[in-house]
Amino acid sequence: MSEELSGVLRAVRRRVEPTDAERERLEQAAHEVIGRAEAALEERGIDGDVMLVGSTARNTWIAGDRDVDVFVRFPTAVDREKLEAVGLDIGHAVLPDGHEEYAEHPYVVGEVDGYDVDLVPCYDVEDATAIQSAVDRTPFHTEYLQARLDDDLADDVRLTKAFLKGIGVYGSDLRTQGFSGYLTELLVLEHGGFRSLVEAAAEWHPPVRFDPETHGTATFDDDLVVIDPTDPERNVAAALSTANLARFQHYARELLAEPRESLFEPVDPDPLDPEAVRAAFDERGTTPVAVTFETPDLVEDDLYPQLEKSLDGIRGLLDRHGFDVLRAAAFAGEHAVLLFELEVAERPAVERHVGPPVHVREHADGFYEKYADSGVYGPFVSEERYVVEREREYHTATELLESDAIFDVALGTDVESTLETTHTVLVGAAVGTLAESFGRELAGYLDPKP
Amino acid sequence: MSEELSGVLRAVRRRVEPTDAERERLEQAAHEVIGRAEAALEERGIDGDVMLVGSTARNTWIAGDRDVDVFVRFPTAVDREKLEAVGLDIGHAVLPDGHEEYAEHPYVVGEVDGYDVDLVPCYDVEDATAIQSAVDRTPFHTEYLQARLDDDLADDVRLTKAFLKGIGVYGSDLRTQGFSGYLTELLVLEHGGFRSLVEAAAEWHPPVRFDPETHGTATFDDDLVVIDPTDPERNVAAALSTANLARFQHYARELLAEPRESLFEPVDPDPLDPEAVRAAFDERGTTPVAVTFETPDLVEDDLYPQLEKSLDGIRGLLDRHGFDVLRAAAFAGEHAVLLFELEVAERPAVERHVGPPVHVREHADGFYEKYADSGVYGPFVSEERYVVEREREYHTATELLESDAIFDVALGTDVESTLETTHTVLVGAAVGTLAESFGRELAGYLDPKP
Repeated sequence: MSEELSGVLRAVRRRVEPTDAERERLEQAAHEVIGRAEAALEERGIDGDVMLVGSTARNTWIAGDRDVDVFVRFPTAVDREKLEAVGLDIGHAVLPDGHEEYAEHPYVVGEVDGYDVDLVPCYDVEDATAIQSAVDRTPFHTEYLQARLDDDLADDVRLTKAFLKGIGVYGSDLRTQGFSGYLTELLVLEHGGFRSLVEAAAEWHPPVRFDPETHGTATFDDDLVVIDPTDPERNVAAALSTANLARFQHYARELLAEPRESLFEPVDPDPLDPEAVRAAFDERGTTPVAVTFETPDLVEDDLYPQLEKSLDGIRGLLDRHGFDVLRAAAFAGEHAVLLFELEVAERPAVERHVGPPVHVREHADGFYEKYADSGVYGPFVSEERYVVEREREYHTATELLESDAIFDVALGTDVESTLETTHTVLVGAAVGTLAESFGRELAGYLDPKP
Repeated sequence: MSEELSGVLRAVRRRVEPTDAERERLEQAAHEVIGRAEAALEERGIDGDVMLVGSTARNTWIAGDRDVDVFVRFPTAVDREKLEAVGLDIGHAVLPDGHEEYAEHPYVVGEVDGYDVDLVPCYDVEDATAIQSAVDRTPFHTEYLQARLDDDLADDVRLTKAFLKGIGVYGSDLRTQGFSGYLTELLVLEHGGFRSLVEAAAEWHPPVRFDPETHGTATFDDDLVVIDPTDPERNVAAALSTANLARFQHYARELLAEPRESLFEPVDPDPLDPEAVRAAFDERGTTPVAVTFETPDLVEDDLYPQLEKSLDGIRGLLDRHGFDVLRAAAFAGEHAVLLFELEVAERPAVERHVGPPVHVREHADGFYEKYADSGVYGPFVSEERYVVEREREYHTATELLESDAIFDVALGTDVESTLETTHTVLVGAAVGTLAESFGRELAGYLDPKP
């Protein structure tokens, strides 16, 4: 085992471990929230209980994290409508300045003593396979891990989270498609620590499967499968993308080969200005084109899948029309951008159109008659078929993107309705102006890392 | 049956039928040649015979044709070396101003009374399956047809030949890849005349097979199979290309749908001048590139297959490098030209290069190390693989065609050695200058007919 790696890990450990004072402050805040929630339950005569969940409950939070997740568990006899109403009511009582958010059902988010508090109602079900809503699972996860993560493992969970954040693959939201906190903790538990996890990951040959409780009943197509110890039919790693698993493997090797603290620290590239963006595309000799539009008003977990779907759809459209896409990316802020970097931005006035075999007379006659006096080149014979060179419908990628053809491909629903209202197509040097809003994203795009 | 078609055929028949005076002149010339050849045989004490073959022998020649083919048949006891030596000796005796040409063995070509005479030595074998050289077959073909073609059928053979010439598919040489005279006569015989032949051809569904003597033993991959009545193992239509069979079917339908004499008259398009060629490519919006070189000193049957092979090889090379070829053609005169019309003549400075899956560590590590500090974009991760965008070797089609990469593809042997010595690459407007030598060919290329 490398001394160098040990030194790096010691240094990172120091950085990510909360101080005693920090722990105490968080415990006080959590205590305050739990006390308020219990009082609110009692006031309303409900036979529920209150539970601290997540990394704060498991002592696996990273120094500087300011999240407190508290679940209020209702008896299953309470119907869903009442759970939602009372859940929000309690939420507002606990967090008077809070606001509502919506996952599978609504909950209240607010601030207590400088901590970001989520107050989530759920059902107190018998076990995780009997859940009525996804959030009902969380308390079981907390109980399972609390019973198994000692202080050393909790230390290593922090290290692992810092590493995953540093390399950009932490978070199971649909934008990141990375490792959830629960998945991270299960992997550390399974491998007995951070170092043995990265040593194993460096050699994984996906599909890789772990089943800590040896009770898995279903099969999964995913590259990484970690059967939920509290639910034999669930893959905890379902949200992890193929690329992010590969990235984790890549950086695991990097860390072992050349240990360094920087791998535990996310680096945002310096933003590029419009001129630098133009110069970069010039150097690559490609033609960038961008479809820009007002960002649909959606939560990120809805927005990013829609952007990805739209990006794929339009990329396919461009490719099919001969405008070869080298790479593509979607960015979103106030405006959204679908960026396509083209190898070919222009095609000739004519395109080859291959007709039926001459000997298949019923089709051949129709084809020949259709084109014989239509001003195309041909029909001529190539091998056994008629061929014409007819006028190409879209001579440039810009013409294609400005046409209604983009609505013939699969787009995200809200992206589609936004594009129908209005959108702008930027091409070539004009794409540089995107740097005003997306200078950092463009810097990352133009200097891609694993 | 259309009156109109009958009228057209009557007119063509009048045009292609030799006059009595013309027949007489040809018979005199043939008689003269045969007489000289018989005398030469006798002088040399050889027990051979002399035979008029080909269309002049079968009365199927077209008015204006000036070809007389005479075969001198040697006993099989004569060894090949002697046959060649004596054959040439007799050839020069018969045609004192003649010169030698070479097919499977050498023969003499010359002029008698204004007719082009081929004097070909061959063996007097028992039947066509016992031939020692391809030419030994010819006398059997002549005998077979002489016994079966009456004057009406001979008339229709002339009509058919005129039609095949008119539409550009007459001749089984490797440049034309069309219908040989023998194939034409067998098809007319098989169908009982020109009109029934074209009516049948309009409906053919290749592969089409005829076996006049019902003695065929072999199977063939060709689209049209006509088993040689004098040799059960030979397809008389083997040299016919797929495209030329399709053309014959196309024009057969044209003739039946809209009978007109022009279909029996080959039209050479008016040559284009350089300016018109440039304007035509401009209008198409393509980029023409041409590889030009001194034409290798070969007979056409060697030259054209080599040009086609080279054209295919370089076309594939261009396509594989992203210089999409819309159409290509080879021309030959004093110089030879391989012309490629490109949809894409230029690619970016970079190209996508997909590496191994990250999890296949032995390959992945090597790939990553090779590219990590090499100035490429990346390596980055796309799905499960490493990808880099590296410098493209050939940025333009011209660079590619001027490089040694053209020698990595299959070229005709003599074309390859010529290109190794010297060749020129013309691109864009410069291709217009080819019109000085190939104005007619370019006119045909730019206004393609079936």
